[in-house]
Amino acid sequence: MRFYMPVRLFDEEECVKKHAAEIAAFGKKALIVTGKSSAFRNGSFEDVSGVLKDAGIGYELFSEVEENPSTDTVFKAKELFAEAGIDFVIGIGGGSPMDAAKAIALVLKHPEADIDYLYDKTKDPSALPVICIPTSCGTGSEVTGISVLTRHDKKTKISMVHMVFPTMSLVDGKYIRSASKSLIVNSAVDALAHMFESALNAKTDAYVHMTVSAGLKQWIKIKGVLTGEREASEEDRRLLMRASTLAGMSIAGCGTALPHALSYILTYDLGLPHGRAVGYFLPSFMAAAPQEQRDVLLKAAGFADVAELKAFLDTVFGRQEVPENVLAKTFEAVKHNTAKMNGVVFPVDENILHGIVYG
Amino acid sequence: MRFYMPVRLFDEEECVKKHAAEIAAFGKKALIVTGKSSAFRNGSFEDVSGVLKDAGIGYELFSEVEENPSTDTVFKAKELFAEAGIDFVIGIGGGSPMDAAKAIALVLKHPEADIDYLYDKTKDPSALPVICIPTSCGTGSEVTGISVLTRHDKKTKISMVHMVFPTMSLVDGKYIRSASKSLIVNSAVDALAHMFESALNAKTDAYVHMTVSAGLKQWIKIKGVLTGEREASEEDRRLLMRASTLAGMSIAGCGTALPHALSYILTYDLGLPHGRAVGYFLPSFMAAAPQEQRDVLLKAAGFADVAELKAFLDTVFGRQEVPENVLAKTFEAVKHNTAKMNGVVFPVDENILHGIVYG
Repeated sequence: MRFYMPVRLFDEEECVKKHAAEIAAFGKKALIVTGKSSAFRNGSFEDVSGVLKDAGIGYELFSEVEENPSTDTVFKAKELFAEAGIDFVIGIGGGSPMDAAKAIALVLKHPEADIDYLYDKTKDPSALPVICIPTSCGTGSEVTGISVLTRHDKKTKISMVHMVFPTMSLVDGKYIRSASKSLIVNSAVDALAHMFESALNAKTDAYVHMTVSAGLKQWIKIKGVLTGEREASEEDRRLLMRASTLAGMSIAGCGTALPHALSYILTYDLGLPHGRAVGYFLPSFMAAAPQEQRDVLLKAAGFADVAELKAFLDTVFGRQEVPENVLAKTFEAVKHNTAKMNGVVFPVDENILHGIVYG
Repeated sequence: MRFYMPVRLFDEEECVKKHAAEIAAFGKKALIVTGKSSAFRNGSFEDVSGVLKDAGIGYELFSEVEENPSTDTVFKAKELFAEAGIDFVIGIGGGSPMDAAKAIALVLKHPEADIDYLYDKTKDPSALPVICIPTSCGTGSEVTGISVLTRHDKKTKISMVHMVFPTMSLVDGKYIRSASKSLIVNSAVDALAHMFESALNAKTDAYVHMTVSAGLKQWIKIKGVLTGEREASEEDRRLLMRASTLAGMSIAGCGTALPHALSYILTYDLGLPHGRAVGYFLPSFMAAAPQEQRDVLLKAAGFADVAELKAFLDTVFGRQEVPENVLAKTFEAVKHNTAKMNGVVFPVDENILHGIVYG
């Protein structure tokens, strides 16, 4: 049983401006890492660059991080800024820029680093300090050491083996003011899945239950926004960001479980958003869990039973049909993945997996 | 709202032996800091020195830490080991050796450090890495950056201004196997007070409530041991240590409140153990709290109301009488302490304080 959360986390209104002095203390020159546009629309880049300018800290901007950022992108940043005297890296955005910022901070620290460095456990894992500022929610990258990168050379996504936790993360609900309803719903369901899955992960423990329980206490308060009963308030956005961060702490403690493993083919083959793809398998996964644990989790999220969870997901996403051949492919892919099959707190054999896949 | 817990915490049976490789990675030479005897009786020193020997790591032993360790003790250790090439410090014991270990790790890092260094915010707060191994419970020092030191020159106890969080803490219930019933009860009540007080501290937030709630889930399971209904099992000891650690995380997040502030004179003038002195004011403090918050906390700890909490404390400690003049002195001391009076989530004026002091 273990707990490790070395991130200095501030979860406060206007926290970028409030903690300007701490940001400035990181060094004389920052590299700001963002995606192509949202950081420039939601006010986060303006806040960060303003704070740096006021403090007389120089910065470079790398705004080329794509969805599912690739190792190519990481090394492009390295090439551009290796000689720029960067002291620290600020990742602003969703999971993609934050994950890329961690990898860039690692390779900027080690001039000799090539792609193999990212996947070689014997290498020094120390990185330049990283500050994360989430402007989306769901991934929890602001509180994990994980950096998931796309390797075009291997046509797949693989997490770096090195853990690069942000030194500081600044979480402010205002940055999702302009987020679409669809992004909010997908993120909220992803966060819910992170909490349910980590609580039912084979490595779960009292500390994971702690963050799950705290996260669900925030999550349950925003259900009405997700179902469209009411508009999101500032407080709702703060609660959603906080639930997402606590869900991130939960997966940092032990990882996800079957719904995440099953979701990837739905995303690749059908283009389903991540939250929706994960949500597709969540009711049947909960139905397969031991009753006592299932009931505690469902109740904490405000669902009387699995049917209510299913009805909620149908309301927020619309009813989702998945072609038989895609389900069959998913079933085949995961049934041979013993790490995933054994990574759940209850025993999962092929029959049970079949039930989860086919609902 | 903030969360910061940079300690790599392992809360596992035989965790010292299990994490031998991580301990050995801290350097070539350790300084082990203990009190005068308990570490040598409860097996913790044997475990730690065995792990170091097996790994070929040298160590020095400083076993002179007294209760309420003084700055004199810290500088004695500095004098003895400044030239010994110490790479890291291991504090084993209750709050006293762990707090002393943090201060010693600080002054060993800075050869120029004198007593003023400990209390000068402008000085570099970095310290040698510290490993904490609690062999008592209640203080939570294994998860805080706090080091409370006695200053004989000022005839008082003052916390260092620098935060020195342990880099790693190893929590194993087996080290309290030989602890007396009285120590267990005092520690458990201190941990309960840490949780109630931090939840009602003016600086409380969702993260403090998270650790409090998780801690009370452990604490409630050991009540039967405290009241003498049953003997402590290995599992009880683990739960108590974990509750104490989670209570430590809670005070790390925001600090204690009035019962702790009120308790000190009872300890100094009457020699009451810390847990018992704090427990004396806990029921009247809870009675003064807003009903909704009080009820949630009491229920989480398994008490129907304040009367049940009071009855529980009378059972575990026996009924405690405090002379009128000591109560008067306590009241006078705290009523002028505006930080303490304002440090509670509900308004406290002299009348309310009077009610808390006189019950």
